[in-house]
Amino acid sequence: MQGAFKLSAAIQAWGTAVGKKEYEGPLGHLFDLHDPDCKFGQKTWESAESEMQRMALAVAMARMGVSDGQIGALFAGDLQNQCVGSAYGLLSYDIPYLGLYGACSTCAEGLLLSAVTVTSRACSLCAAVTSSHFCAAERQYRSPLEYGSQRPPTAQWTVTGAGAFLVGRPLRTADEVLIVHGMAGKAKDYGINDANNMGAAMAPAARDTLLRFFADTHTAPEDYDRIVTGDLGFEGGDILCQLLLADGLDISSRYEDCGRLIYHKERQDVHSGGSGCGCAASVLAAEILPKISKGEWKRILFMATGAMMSPDSIKQGGNIPAVAHLLELRTALEQREEFL
Amino acid sequence: MQGAFKLSAAIQAWGTAVGKKEYEGPLGHLFDLHDPDCKFGQKTWESAESEMQRMALAVAMARMGVSDGQIGALFAGDLQNQCVGSAYGLLSYDIPYLGLYGACSTCAEGLLLSAVTVTSRACSLCAAVTSSHFCAAERQYRSPLEYGSQRPPTAQWTVTGAGAFLVGRPLRTADEVLIVHGMAGKAKDYGINDANNMGAAMAPAARDTLLRFFADTHTAPEDYDRIVTGDLGFEGGDILCQLLLADGLDISSRYEDCGRLIYHKERQDVHSGGSGCGCAASVLAAEILPKISKGEWKRILFMATGAMMSPDSIKQGGNIPAVAHLLELRTALEQREEFL
Repeated sequence: MQGAFKLSAAIQAWGTAVGKKEYEGPLGHLFDLHDPDCKFGQKTWESAESEMQRMALAVAMARMGVSDGQIGALFAGDLQNQCVGSAYGLLSYDIPYLGLYGACSTCAEGLLLSAVTVTSRACSLCAAVTSSHFCAAERQYRSPLEYGSQRPPTAQWTVTGAGAFLVGRPLRTADEVLIVHGMAGKAKDYGINDANNMGAAMAPAARDTLLRFFADTHTAPEDYDRIVTGDLGFEGGDILCQLLLADGLDISSRYEDCGRLIYHKERQDVHSGGSGCGCAASVLAAEILPKISKGEWKRILFMATGAMMSPDSIKQGGNIPAVAHLLELRTALEQREEFL
Repeated sequence: MQGAFKLSAAIQAWGTAVGKKEYEGPLGHLFDLHDPDCKFGQKTWESAESEMQRMALAVAMARMGVSDGQIGALFAGDLQNQCVGSAYGLLSYDIPYLGLYGACSTCAEGLLLSAVTVTSRACSLCAAVTSSHFCAAERQYRSPLEYGSQRPPTAQWTVTGAGAFLVGRPLRTADEVLIVHGMAGKAKDYGINDANNMGAAMAPAARDTLLRFFADTHTAPEDYDRIVTGDLGFEGGDILCQLLLADGLDISSRYEDCGRLIYHKERQDVHSGGSGCGCAASVLAAEILPKISKGEWKRILFMATGAMMSPDSIKQGGNIPAVAHLLELRTALEQREEFL
C-alpha cells in the first residue's frame, strides 16, 4: 500500500539560473544563467528569486522547443512565506499552476508529482520549478544580512539558484532521463530543534525513505551508480552514512550530496555546505542529469530532503519535522539498446 | 495539452473539525467535531489548527475503517508560514507526506492530486487534508486580535476548521462520490492589491478555470446541479456571476459558495462571508458530499480559489495572484444503475 510508485516518465529538458557565489563554485561553468549581483535586475531579493524561476523555466522550454500551451501542469514551490517566489515568478506563463511546499525537498516532490501526472495520462507534459535565494532566506528564517550574525559550523549556506525541469511520457530519445520509481517520504520529527543544524534534522528522514525503498524494490546500494541527496551537507551527509552503516548498509563509496558539490568547501566559507530548494534543483540539472543523459551514470537514486519548520514554530517550542522524497533515475541509452 | 484531466477516482470518506463560530452557524450540526474555545486542548492557535487536521483525518479513517499503512500518500497544506499547520498536525500518521501550498485552493488541489495519483495506479488510496484557523491567520496576515482592528465590508472571516478526505480508485459502492474530471487553474494577477478584498482577486481566476473547463468538455452550466466555489464570499461570488453573465453564461440559479453557506450573514457579523483553506474543506465535507452521496445532487462542479500573496509581497508592492482548481464530482448511484 505504501510501496514505491511505479512511474513511466522522463525528464526531457532542464534549465538553471544561479547567483554569484554559485557561479564561482566548482560547478559554476555548468549553470545556464548567472547574475553577478544576485538581483537579476529586480528591486528586492524576493523578486530576484522569482526572476530566477522564470528564467530557468524559459531555458528549459527553449531547449525542448515547447510553448506554454503544450505544458499541462506546472508544479512549483520555494522557501518564501506563502511560496510567493514561485507564485509571482511564474505568473507570466500561461500554464496550470499547482503550488507545493516541501521545503528543500520541493525539487524531488515536483518531479515526483510531474511523473505521477504524466503516468496517469492526465496530461502529457509537466514542468517542475523550484528556487531559493540566500538573502531572502536569511532575513526570513534567521536575521537580516546587515546584522552580520555569526554562523555555527553546522550551519548551511542557502543556495541562490533555481532549477526547472520538463517531465513527459518517455519519448524514446537517447538523451532523456527516465523516472522509473518514486517514493514519497514520511514527515517525521526526530527531536532536533536547532535551526542551524538542518542536516541532523533531515538525515533520519533520508534514511527512512531509503530503507523503505530498498525493502520494497528488493534492491541494495550496490545496484545504483550513485545515491545523491539534496542538501544534507557535510554534517547531515555524514550522519546519514553512519545511520545506514548501523543498518548494515555502506553507501559511502557511491554517496554524493548536492550541498557538498556546489561550493568549494575551504575557499568559499560555507561551513556545512549548501542548502535550500535551489541547491538540489540546480545541481541535479547542471551536474547530475547530464551525466545520466550521457550514460556515464546508468541508474541513480536522487533524494531531496526538507526541514518543514517555520521560525514561529521553533519559537513556540516545536522541533523540526523532516521529509525526504526519492526518485530512481535511469539513462535512456540502455533502454534503447533493449529495443534494438 | 491543457485540457481537463480525465480521472478515475472517488472520495470514499471524509471528516471535519471546526471552531465555535462555525458550530454556531447554519451548518453547525453537520460537522463531526467542534471545540467551544477553538484551542482543541493546545497552547497556541497554531497548534490548535494542527490538532484539527489530525482529528479530521482520524474521523475520515475511522469512518472508512482504514489504518495508516493502507494510505499511500497524504496531500496537505494550510495558510501558516511554511505550512506548519499540516507538517506538525499530521506527524503522528505513518503515511507518506506531500506538502501543498495553494492558499484557499488547497482543498481542491489536494483532492485533484489525490485523484491523479490513484488514477496513475501509483497507489490505491490517498488522503487530502487542509485547514485554517481564524486567530492564527489574523495575526499572521493582518494584525493580532488584541489590536481590535476594524474590518471593511469586503473583508472575509477566516474559517476555523479542517477537512480530511480519503480518495481511492472507485470501489463501486453506492455512497462514494466520483471524481471524473479535474482542471488545474492558472495563476493570474488581475491587478487587485487589497488584502481585504480577496473575493475580487479570486473571482476572475474562477471564471478562467470555469470557461476553460466548459470549452474543453463541451458542457454548459445547465449540465450541473450546482456550481460551488470555495470562498469567494458575497463580494467575490457576485463578481464571478457578473463576469460570467458578460460571457453569456448565467450560473446564478445553480451557484453556491462555501463562504456564504458557513455563517449566518446577519447574525454572525462576518461581512463578506467565510474564507480560508478550512472553509471549502469543511463545507464540502459536511454539506456538499453528503448531498451527492445520497443522489440529491447528481453532478456538480466544485472549485476552490486561492489568493497566493504574502503580507511581505503586498508591502513590496505586489498585487494578489489568484488561482482556482476545479473538480467534477458525480454521484455513484447513477453509475451503479448503468451496471444493473
